[in-house]
Amino acid sequence: MYSAVIDELIEKFERLPGIGHKSAERIAFYMLENMSEKDAEDMAGTIIKAKKNVRLCECCQNLTDESVCSVCSSPKRDKSVICVVEGPEDVSAIENTHEYNGLYHVLHGALSPMDGIGPDDIKINELLLRLADGEVSEIILATNPTVNGTATAVYISKLLLPFDVRVTRIAHGIPIGSDIEYADKITIIKALESRQLMN
Amino acid sequence: MYSAVIDELIEKFERLPGIGHKSAERIAFYMLENMSEKDAEDMAGTIIKAKKNVRLCECCQNLTDESVCSVCSSPKRDKSVICVVEGPEDVSAIENTHEYNGLYHVLHGALSPMDGIGPDDIKINELLLRLADGEVSEIILATNPTVNGTATAVYISKLLLPFDVRVTRIAHGIPIGSDIEYADKITIIKALESRQLMN
Repeated sequence: MYSAVIDELIEKFERLPGIGHKSAERIAFYMLENMSEKDAEDMAGTIIKAKKNVRLCECCQNLTDESVCSVCSSPKRDKSVICVVEGPEDVSAIENTHEYNGLYHVLHGALSPMDGIGPDDIKINELLLRLADGEVSEIILATNPTVNGTATAVYISKLLLPFDVRVTRIAHGIPIGSDIEYADKITIIKALESRQLMN
Repeated sequence: MYSAVIDELIEKFERLPGIGHKSAERIAFYMLENMSEKDAEDMAGTIIKAKKNVRLCECCQNLTDESVCSVCSSPKRDKSVICVVEGPEDVSAIENTHEYNGLYHVLHGALSPMDGIGPDDIKINELLLRLADGEVSEIILATNPTVNGTATAVYISKLLLPFDVRVTRIAHGIPIGSDIEYADKITIIKALESRQLMN
């Protein structure tokens, strides 16, 4: 019902994840009413620049604008541990804790036979290649605790059997600060199964 | 923690209304991982094009890419009624009902003395100018039922006293399909005050 170019702008924002029609309208109107022409041009420029320059790190497959990302190239990181995650947002979440000092490996997805996503569609081979020099002593499988994430972790752990490397899975249980009464059944079962000795 | 250009992209999305840091990250990663370079360029192009071409309708002040918007220039619309709203999103919401056939007037805000927004900062004068030819017989004040929106409606209704025009306010009450028990106090009070005879 708007003029074609406004409809087009709304439709573009609507395609982004987590943005419905109402939010897309709100964003479009904000841009048209409140943003300066310079800011809008800056935004458009950043989209083009990012899309052009960002690629996958040759080593960990995380998004970067260099050939090797800042984590992989940092001399301060412990190169004997690799934390395997599904996506760049997981790297971000773990980095924000400032507690992990090893490297990462980004799979860019999880195995999902239902959607036709097999081992060759995610970065599993690239992980195996990183183990060639024998420098890695532990692989932490930090894929999501979903059916696909768990299947991916199990699949990778089997592939890693021939390698002389410790394979671990991040713990699942009741989140800190939340109430047991609100936890779902599977989480409670996992938390009970993984109970740890306190004395 | 990402490379500079990724951080920049996230930061740009974070500035849009209703998008927090997490959502901005998600959108940025979606663009970098799942969008084709062409789609990203299209999006950037649309932002620039929209920002360049969209202006305010000379008549109703709604956003448009023509000098007079499609509603104002339509011969099918009833030019004797003007519905006054705060923003283009309100026009969109009312148009979606397909029940209103009059014209609109977009104020681009509401009076807000606390934020220093006075009568000259919103499109009130433009509304008065539209009454000059005596063609308009009713003004529906459809500003939001907030403190600022109500104050704006009251202010405009006073300005319209010298004009030979019917001034109405949209009704407020319990939304259709919702429960009275969940309505807030003010809405219930308004609904009781505006009760209507049924027989």
